[in-house]
Amino acid sequence: MNRCALLSVGLAAALGALATPAAAQSILVNPPVGEWAMAGRTYDLQRYSPLKQITTSNVKNLTAAWTFSTGVLTGHEGSPLVINNVMYVHTPFPDIVYALDLTKPGAPMIWKHVPNQPADAKPIACCDVVNRGLAYHPTGKLFIELLAGDLVALDAKTGKELWRAPNADYKTGSTMTNAPIVIKDVVIAGVSGGEFGVRGYVTAFDVNTGKQLWRAYSTGSDEDVKITGPANQWYPSMQGKDLGMTTWPHDQWQHGGGPTWGWYSYDPQLNLFYYGTGNPGVWNPDQRPGDNKWAMTIFARNPETGEAKWAYQMTPHDEWDYDGVNEMVLFDATIGGKPVKALAHFDRNGFGYVLDRTNGKVLVAEPYGQNAPNWASRIDLATGVPVRNPQFGTTSAKNTVGICPASIGFKDQQPSAYSPLTGWFYVPTNNICMDYEGLEVKYAAGQPYVGAIVRMYPGPGGNRGAFVAWDPATGKKRWEIKENLAAYGGALTTAGGVVFYGTMEGWLKAVDQRTGRELWRFKCPSGIIGNPMTYTGPEGKQYIAVLSGIGGWAGIGVALGMGAEDPTAGLGAVGAFSDYLNMSNPGGTLFVFALP
Amino acid sequence: MNRCALLSVGLAAALGALATPAAAQSILVNPPVGEWAMAGRTYDLQRYSPLKQITTSNVKNLTAAWTFSTGVLTGHEGSPLVINNVMYVHTPFPDIVYALDLTKPGAPMIWKHVPNQPADAKPIACCDVVNRGLAYHPTGKLFIELLAGDLVALDAKTGKELWRAPNADYKTGSTMTNAPIVIKDVVIAGVSGGEFGVRGYVTAFDVNTGKQLWRAYSTGSDEDVKITGPANQWYPSMQGKDLGMTTWPHDQWQHGGGPTWGWYSYDPQLNLFYYGTGNPGVWNPDQRPGDNKWAMTIFARNPETGEAKWAYQMTPHDEWDYDGVNEMVLFDATIGGKPVKALAHFDRNGFGYVLDRTNGKVLVAEPYGQNAPNWASRIDLATGVPVRNPQFGTTSAKNTVGICPASIGFKDQQPSAYSPLTGWFYVPTNNICMDYEGLEVKYAAGQPYVGAIVRMYPGPGGNRGAFVAWDPATGKKRWEIKENLAAYGGALTTAGGVVFYGTMEGWLKAVDQRTGRELWRFKCPSGIIGNPMTYTGPEGKQYIAVLSGIGGWAGIGVALGMGAEDPTAGLGAVGAFSDYLNMSNPGGTLFVFALP
Repeated sequence: MNRCALLSVGLAAALGALATPAAAQSILVNPPVGEWAMAGRTYDLQRYSPLKQITTSNVKNLTAAWTFSTGVLTGHEGSPLVINNVMYVHTPFPDIVYALDLTKPGAPMIWKHVPNQPADAKPIACCDVVNRGLAYHPTGKLFIELLAGDLVALDAKTGKELWRAPNADYKTGSTMTNAPIVIKDVVIAGVSGGEFGVRGYVTAFDVNTGKQLWRAYSTGSDEDVKITGPANQWYPSMQGKDLGMTTWPHDQWQHGGGPTWGWYSYDPQLNLFYYGTGNPGVWNPDQRPGDNKWAMTIFARNPETGEAKWAYQMTPHDEWDYDGVNEMVLFDATIGGKPVKALAHFDRNGFGYVLDRTNGKVLVAEPYGQNAPNWASRIDLATGVPVRNPQFGTTSAKNTVGICPASIGFKDQQPSAYSPLTGWFYVPTNNICMDYEGLEVKYAAGQPYVGAIVRMYPGPGGNRGAFVAWDPATGKKRWEIKENLAAYGGALTTAGGVVFYGTMEGWLKAVDQRTGRELWRFKCPSGIIGNPMTYTGPEGKQYIAVLSGIGGWAGIGVALGMGAEDPTAGLGAVGAFSDYLNMSNPGGTLFVFALP
Repeated sequence: MNRCALLSVGLAAALGALATPAAAQSILVNPPVGEWAMAGRTYDLQRYSPLKQITTSNVKNLTAAWTFSTGVLTGHEGSPLVINNVMYVHTPFPDIVYALDLTKPGAPMIWKHVPNQPADAKPIACCDVVNRGLAYHPTGKLFIELLAGDLVALDAKTGKELWRAPNADYKTGSTMTNAPIVIKDVVIAGVSGGEFGVRGYVTAFDVNTGKQLWRAYSTGSDEDVKITGPANQWYPSMQGKDLGMTTWPHDQWQHGGGPTWGWYSYDPQLNLFYYGTGNPGVWNPDQRPGDNKWAMTIFARNPETGEAKWAYQMTPHDEWDYDGVNEMVLFDATIGGKPVKALAHFDRNGFGYVLDRTNGKVLVAEPYGQNAPNWASRIDLATGVPVRNPQFGTTSAKNTVGICPASIGFKDQQPSAYSPLTGWFYVPTNNICMDYEGLEVKYAAGQPYVGAIVRMYPGPGGNRGAFVAWDPATGKKRWEIKENLAAYGGALTTAGGVVFYGTMEGWLKAVDQRTGRELWRFKCPSGIIGNPMTYTGPEGKQYIAVLSGIGGWAGIGVALGMGAEDPTAGLGAVGAFSDYLNMSNPGGTLFVFALP
């Protein structure tokens, strides 16, 4: 460390003592190694922890330390937060939040917050009533998006509601399921509802008051989308005025989807936050000729103004419901021998993308799943658009069979992790293909607006997923572990060289990052679709925590008690995941593991 | 072992090979040491296992081996069975049964049986929709009592229903919650509904056909109660014709309660099975002057005919809802220097009884809880009846305050265990007292018929329970562990010198049988009101299993989501158990532990 660095550490400490806004941000920008204060631990969404008590050598001794029932049986996505020896646990609808005291044996509850929320919001969630977690502001505020549409701020000490801001209206089909992000004194929330003809957006609120600061739509005029100038300097198809209107027939953009329910990342140096937009509405592609911008798009925006720095549409004129919402992971790459401020994204469409996150240029776009997608042979790096195989295009004129991946993607919400130890990504994947038939439908507010009949089934190989190590420099797989059911929960990498992930059977597994060798597994009570996380307890010990609770889109049949009779139920998921005896029962438990 | 014993072992083995009915009984009469084929492991209900891999020295290393979500959130009483490397797990309503394959990692499901059962039976359960478990017949049949009133036989291999026999009718207020017992080719089931004016009975069915063999009522004529001659030779108050009618006003015996929802034991040598009857109906004592026989009574009956060998009424003219249903544990005692075929019973009324089980004579009757009962100073061993303190009698004329124990008893359904190592009983207890006011009510079929307003609260000391070691030879406590919440789950003793029990916070604890020293604890996801059990896995390892899932009467507020506002809700239980932050969330998980 040079002298200047030492001086700046001293300065940061001095500022911390003053509790200025900048210092208040520090635990988000520079989180203590043993804490987990946002969805992906760090703004880059790497889901990597520098903790290393648990290693590839000793992880075989990992054992359950304590457990906690959430009291809710539907799908448990996301992960708890740990800040200052308190664990904050969220549940699916009714979106309860618990604070647990990590300084006491068995981590008793400090408080429990059950929000006031209308129960008739439940059927408006397309794919189980999940919630992906909390955001935290260093002034001691927690934020949760309620399914019915309110963003709620809680006092982290007491669990009392500080304010509520309406952001979505379930009566019009718009719900909220994702984890918001806190950037400086702004909290940004998204919306779900791509199956109800919503017009997606992200909205920023003042963390202290709940006052709306800005809203950026996924479709509509450049002003509404907050695009100034060409959206992407590299690709002509992404340049032009008001493409969010002109790439749609008539006013279809008003119900054009582009929901924003994925994981959000942020680069403090560039002051840009990153997220993807979901499917264009309606699913039936015949009803919306055109590119359907800016659905299926990666956005880089200024968090204070919402202004788009760049946008990149991955799947113009989507015909398969390949929502582009999956996480954007920020990392320092070396590609073609050159250092790059990179962004990696494993899209539902089956391609893994590496972009220059400063400007939206695609550097790598290669398959990452167990099988290659067949709807497109490749992504043309010159034009930025996929080279399609017309055989697997969809229409309401016929049932198109054998499309890979299925709508649920070779990866869905389950977030990948990155390890600086290997420079690789660890990607929990689905191996699901489908038949798809468009269907002419009319929009009615608050009613399903899907316009497709989908039947999903296992992809080539017959197994339904794999856990994959993927090298972003080359776009090649390094190893993969096949799973009978999808690897539908997130990944966690640690400095101990271990990567953790869960399965829909309920196994939490620990694997060697370098070799893919399984080192340990534990059978949790219910299938895992949540994300393992790690933290340091007050006594200095490293813990691994994960929510167990089958559900989500893949597990919707189990979570909602659907029969296996109709393979097109659950938007087609029941067809792929109908062997309920394998898939575990519903449940809702937090498991916390440690070395003995 | 002498020559005769050796010969008889050889004979038993030979008979086993022939699979005669006698041999088919052998796993019930002489269960393999590593199995658990009925509610209390053995007919004597000792809840003692000869397994001793897990000892007082190594239990501190016990760790979760695997877990299983039942998919149900209400109170989980009882324990699974383990027979021939298959675990059978039951749930509360809807009374699902699972078969889990113990030979495979993580014990995947073999089958799942969800009975067809009307959901409107749920509100007819007074105290949560619990189920206390399964019975097994060696021809490969499982039996479960459905809440709505059917006894169901399942094929243990496939989970298919073999037959259903109606035994209760929830539409008249009669439900089923207890574990049936299989004796030879008879399966005996009980009924719940003491709060709905039922007339209790036990019914025997043919295990192969479901044909009803006999029914013995708790009230009514001697013929209906199956009493021939004096019910108890020792006590004049229990002798006389048709006392089941004459000790009631008018025809009140027809709604006279005496439900039979406790644990059943059996002595193969005496060919007698034992159980207790519950409260007389209605709770308001002013509506039923008299002894109200045979409510609150221990019965010893012939399992093939139902005929009563003897009966002993513990609490004549109950004024407190001190149901006499708690388990009758059979053991060989030495009392006053003499060997006795004994029966121990820890009654809701606060007295621990030791009887000569051959003839119903009371040998010991002493308090067992943390505090002494105050409604009676003692049980008069000459007359067999309690010596009452009129201060704590109840009436509809006034609210009687400060009664100990409360209706829920110093012990309720949570079964005690006996250890032949110490000769002591291990009794999970409540420390709850109450105010009680009778209320004039009219009977209407299927409607609550309680007639009392009860408010419960912690007894002297302020804690709500204790785990107690009790010496049946003297009726004295040997040690006790105070618990903040009630010890509302069962106990398990093992030949390793350990006794296990659970708490409503979710702690499973291991304690030294001799000293009461805590050796180990684990925080399960939800409060424990189930009974720990132990078995040997296919690899020869000893496991401990317990259902975690708060509820039952004590946990009814949490299980059914009642607020804490009304302390008389849940028949008064909410008054004693209203601090829900301490009590854990609802949940339904099986936990299985082993040494590493």
